[in-house]
Amino acid sequence: MESAPTLVRATLTAYLEDARSGIRQTLGDYFSRKMFDLRGIGAWGSDVALRLHEFSAGGKMLRGALVLLGADIFSRERDGEELKLSAAVELLQSALLIHDDIMDRDMLRRGAESVHAQYRRLGAAIGVGEPDRFGESLGICAADVAIFAAFEIVASLAVPGSILAAVTAMCSREMTYVGAAQMQDVTFGHSPRAASEEEVQRLCRYKTGRYTFSLPLSLGGLLAGAPERSLEALSQAGERMGVLFQLKDDEIGLFGGPGETGKPGGSDITEGKQTLYHVRMVRAASPSQRRRLARILGNQGANDREIEYVRSLVMELGVRDELSAEMTRLAEEAHALADTIYDASSAGLRIVHEIIEYNLRRGR
Amino acid sequence: MESAPTLVRATLTAYLEDARSGIRQTLGDYFSRKMFDLRGIGAWGSDVALRLHEFSAGGKMLRGALVLLGADIFSRERDGEELKLSAAVELLQSALLIHDDIMDRDMLRRGAESVHAQYRRLGAAIGVGEPDRFGESLGICAADVAIFAAFEIVASLAVPGSILAAVTAMCSREMTYVGAAQMQDVTFGHSPRAASEEEVQRLCRYKTGRYTFSLPLSLGGLLAGAPERSLEALSQAGERMGVLFQLKDDEIGLFGGPGETGKPGGSDITEGKQTLYHVRMVRAASPSQRRRLARILGNQGANDREIEYVRSLVMELGVRDELSAEMTRLAEEAHALADTIYDASSAGLRIVHEIIEYNLRRGR
Repeated sequence: MESAPTLVRATLTAYLEDARSGIRQTLGDYFSRKMFDLRGIGAWGSDVALRLHEFSAGGKMLRGALVLLGADIFSRERDGEELKLSAAVELLQSALLIHDDIMDRDMLRRGAESVHAQYRRLGAAIGVGEPDRFGESLGICAADVAIFAAFEIVASLAVPGSILAAVTAMCSREMTYVGAAQMQDVTFGHSPRAASEEEVQRLCRYKTGRYTFSLPLSLGGLLAGAPERSLEALSQAGERMGVLFQLKDDEIGLFGGPGETGKPGGSDITEGKQTLYHVRMVRAASPSQRRRLARILGNQGANDREIEYVRSLVMELGVRDELSAEMTRLAEEAHALADTIYDASSAGLRIVHEIIEYNLRRGR
Repeated sequence: MESAPTLVRATLTAYLEDARSGIRQTLGDYFSRKMFDLRGIGAWGSDVALRLHEFSAGGKMLRGALVLLGADIFSRERDGEELKLSAAVELLQSALLIHDDIMDRDMLRRGAESVHAQYRRLGAAIGVGEPDRFGESLGICAADVAIFAAFEIVASLAVPGSILAAVTAMCSREMTYVGAAQMQDVTFGHSPRAASEEEVQRLCRYKTGRYTFSLPLSLGGLLAGAPERSLEALSQAGERMGVLFQLKDDEIGLFGGPGETGKPGGSDITEGKQTLYHVRMVRAASPSQRRRLARILGNQGANDREIEYVRSLVMELGVRDELSAEMTRLAEEAHALADTIYDASSAGLRIVHEIIEYNLRRGR
């Protein structure tokens, strides 16, 4: 099979930029129609279409790009349907983020007001009695609309019925997993109990490995009619790419400064984020080290010296080396699995290998 | 076409009871598998399957029964697929109720704890810091899982691809309308501004006419392969059945006692519910009547004499007669539209006519 023209000599950055631009266009097409469709329901109808469009278009669109990549690996040419599926996946991600921000009371997202914060402000302007509650309620509804819109787009795919059924089934099934994983994550954030290594691993596997990488890659492959055994290899490679991505994220969150994370240095430490670094460090620490850690982890008032103490302990106890080795191993496995994908275009595979290397080596 | 065996000599009550029992069974089958499927994600995985099953099985299942009816009208025999679609529609309704109860802070639903109240209790038991917030967050996730589970069931329908696409498209499109309508409804509840007659009519049309009646009937018809013109007549009849149902609900809410509504008498008055009775009464009232109404409507402390004043004003100003006539007209239109459904079984149509009469005459 020949390589997809869009892939020839594409570098990763150019590939992702091209993907984002195509997905943005597709979201724009959908919502400009949807705005009219929803206008009949009242003022919020067309407003929610505009707002979801703007919010979704502002994302990094990693998942949408991976849908395209999954399709490009197996298809000679794009026909527009893979862009629709990418847009649907981005809408699902928007919905999860909107609900997430309500749960965490986050007022900022994607460099702007989070969606419930926007409704909060609008509610205050029209004189509602409880702007917070109003904003959260409208945010819940807006995210629901985004989910239904995503399935509306999926249902509009011009593909054989068997492929449509498989795409809808895979997408909805994996989304039930993400919903349940999110419940675990919320519980870790609220509960006084520390998460176990197995629990942290599982969350990482479902929320980043499967949801962020395997699902979009597999959906794209499924749409392009990839053979079963290729889909399995792609999905397995994706899972490792995602877990690697998350470990690197945690590493940057622990060791990076504001320039790398966009947050104050050490904020993962002062927020007490339960990462694999965290869990393994606490397990390997001596009783006296644990007592000192207990005063620092999750303590918003921890100072720079305390943050440095945690960082040096992660290294001293060998946790950093251990997880660096694990990341290298995950990258090797992902590379090897990618090379077993049957019927793949070499240009598509090149992008997969580039993403694996990026996930392993990125500094921010 | 012969009539469906399940319909022969079925009275409405027996028909609905049989529908509920079939849907309950189907939900049970799905969730007993889903419990294992979600077990891998962690403790909340199988728990949410159990909890959604219990919550959904406790509903009146009007919408699920209407899916079956929509299919029975056009099919000789059931093959189980229409029960799956009914179960999916009931799961969507469960999701909307769970999100609704979070927005309204309702701790009771379907005669038991609402879902977020259940999580609130469980959170308090494991020592979370903010049980209210924890309960609402897990409730948001659980409803999301219910939505995805609904689409997972739809995707599993053993029907031709074109029907699957049409069912998914209709369902997701109408659900975007319900989401937007819910945003309007939330706004009426929070805003100091009174809703206009047009706004109340629109909400009634989308939330009860289309969502509760037209959508399930049409989905059932679509699944059974009903011809286009029959679907249109069924959908139109459904819309009138739903608006009629809502007007009757508002009438009972206004004039009924605790025996009819399950709530304290006049609670629609003291809650200031913006129904068509409310809007028309306020419009027809004299300035002095409006001043008195302003002190009663939405006043939780209003006494029995004040509630009686509102009731007699609705009659005196001719609003009750006007809306009674409107209900009769809606019932007549629905009957006439039902009779234009091409290719329908007479037993199926009989149930449709019975529902129209029930919606017009029910006392609670």
